[in-house]
Amino acid sequence: MTGSDASRPRVAFQGAHGAYSEQAALALWNGAVQPVPLSSFDEVFAGVESGEYERGIVPIENSLAGSIHRNYDLLLRHNLYIIAEHSLRVSHCLIAHPGVALDEITEVHSHPQALAQCEDSLRALGPWRAIAQGDTAGSVKLIREQGWRHAAAIAGEAAAEHYGMAILHRNLEDEPANYTRFLALGREPADADLGGPHKTSLAFAGKNEPGLLFRCLAAFALRNIDLSKIESRPLRGVPWEYVFYLDFAGSLREPRCERAVEQLREMSSFVRVFGSYRRGQPAGPTTE
Amino acid sequence: MTGSDASRPRVAFQGAHGAYSEQAALALWNGAVQPVPLSSFDEVFAGVESGEYERGIVPIENSLAGSIHRNYDLLLRHNLYIIAEHSLRVSHCLIAHPGVALDEITEVHSHPQALAQCEDSLRALGPWRAIAQGDTAGSVKLIREQGWRHAAAIAGEAAAEHYGMAILHRNLEDEPANYTRFLALGREPADADLGGPHKTSLAFAGKNEPGLLFRCLAAFALRNIDLSKIESRPLRGVPWEYVFYLDFAGSLREPRCERAVEQLREMSSFVRVFGSYRRGQPAGPTTE
Repeated sequence: MTGSDASRPRVAFQGAHGAYSEQAALALWNGAVQPVPLSSFDEVFAGVESGEYERGIVPIENSLAGSIHRNYDLLLRHNLYIIAEHSLRVSHCLIAHPGVALDEITEVHSHPQALAQCEDSLRALGPWRAIAQGDTAGSVKLIREQGWRHAAAIAGEAAAEHYGMAILHRNLEDEPANYTRFLALGREPADADLGGPHKTSLAFAGKNEPGLLFRCLAAFALRNIDLSKIESRPLRGVPWEYVFYLDFAGSLREPRCERAVEQLREMSSFVRVFGSYRRGQPAGPTTE
Repeated sequence: MTGSDASRPRVAFQGAHGAYSEQAALALWNGAVQPVPLSSFDEVFAGVESGEYERGIVPIENSLAGSIHRNYDLLLRHNLYIIAEHSLRVSHCLIAHPGVALDEITEVHSHPQALAQCEDSLRALGPWRAIAQGDTAGSVKLIREQGWRHAAAIAGEAAAEHYGMAILHRNLEDEPANYTRFLALGREPADADLGGPHKTSLAFAGKNEPGLLFRCLAAFALRNIDLSKIESRPLRGVPWEYVFYLDFAGSLREPRCERAVEQLREMSSFVRVFGSYRRGQPAGPTTE
C-alpha cells in the first residue's frame, strides 16, 4: 500500500502506517508517494525543512475540534510552503484481532481526540477502559504486536487493512459531520501551472485597534477576492495583539492577489504567506 | 468549598466537584454560588433553560485547542444569554492518594484533552498507561473512591483539595501558556448597570460572496468599535455558506453598538446576539 518504488517522493507524516494523515497523502497524490511515519509534528516540519523528506502532510483543522493551533505555530516557525490541501471524512472503526468477539474486549486504545469523538458510542457498546495512545493507527499496531485479544483500537479502515486486523464496528464517531483538512508541505512553492481554482493561505498580525481587521480585509474586498477562512488568535505573551489566519480564493501569481497582499503588508505589522495551491474539494456530509 | 447556603444561586457545570469549570464559577462570583456538577454540556444548557438552575458555566475556548465548537452549537440551539466571562490559567497537577510514591504508579487517568496537553511531561515521568475518563476532577474522585494506589489523575489543584488527595507534581502541561475562557449563562441578559468595560458576543451567517465579511465588519469599523474575536466556520451541510463568531467591545445598551448590530442584520442572512456582559481580565502568562 505504501509503495516500494524508491523513486516516489517521500512524504513525512505523524503517526503509524494506516493513519488518517497517510490516507490523506495517498488520496492527494493517487498513491504515487512513499509515506514515512514519524512520531511528532515537529519532526515532520524539521524533516521536510532539512531535505530528509521531499514533502510533509499535517492536519490543520477538524470540523468538530477546530483549528490545530500547534500546526499553525509550526508553519510560522519553519520555512516551508503549503503546496496542496485535502479534506478527509474521518470515519472511526473499532478494530481488533480477527476472531475476537465484542464481549471479549475489556479496553479500547486510541488517540485522546478519537476517544473523545466516540465517547457516546463507546459508552453504548460496553463498559470498557479507554486507554490513551499517541495515535490512532499506532494503537492498532500495538494491539497486533502484543497479541492482545482483550483490547480493541479506534482508527481508520486503512489501519485495519494495513495490520491485517478485523473491523468490529464502523462509523463510531458520535457526530457524523467529522472531517479533517490536511495541508501538504514542501520546500518550494507549488507549481502555478496546475489547473483548477487556487487558494492562498497566510497569517498576519497587527496592533489591536478599532478597524484594523476592516482595513486589512479591504485589500481583498475592494478586489472582489473571496475569503474562505478567517480566525483571530491572541498573540502569546503580547496582550491585545492578535495574529489572524486567512485563506483567500486565488493565487499570488495573479496580479490582483499579489497587489492585495502588498496592501495588506501596508496595513499590518507582519504578513507571512504560506503558499498558493490548488483548492481541494470540501469534504462535507454530502460527499459520502 | 461549594457552600451549603441554599439561598445562593445554583450554577450548573459539566464535570465533578473540583473541575476547572467549578473553579471558574467560584472565582467569577467570589464563592457566592452553589456549583452543581452535571455529566454533559447538553445538560448544563437544558438545565439552565428549563429553570432548574439559575446559571450555567461552560468553557468556550482554550489557548492551545482553540474554540469549543460544540458549545457554540449549544449556544445557537438554546435560548440563553452570556452574562459574564472568566479566563482561567489551566495548571494541571498529578494527583494520587496521600503517601503514594511516584514509582508505585502504573497508570494515569484524566480527560483526553488533559492527557494530550501533558503528553511530554508524562513520558518523562514514567512508562505509565494513560486512561481516558470523562473529566479531570472525576478521575480524582474515581481513584479516591476505588482506593487505587497504583493510579494517579491529572486535574486542577482544587480537585486534590476537594477529595483530600495529594499533589505529586504541578504544572504538568507541556505548554505553559494554557488558559481557558469560560462563559457564564443565564435566562436573562446581564445587568447593564455593572461597571467596567463591556463586551458583546454574537454569531452571524451569510452567503459566501466576495466582500460579505468586509461589508459586515464595516458596521463596526465605521463606528470605531473594537473586535476581540472573529472566527469563520463552514455551515454544516450548506456548502460555501459560513457562520462567523464575533466578539466586540461595548454593550448593546450603547446606541452606537445597537446601530452597528442593526446594520449587520441588513448585510447578513442571520444574526444571533448571545449577550452583552462585563469584560473579564485576559488570563495570559503575565497574570501568574
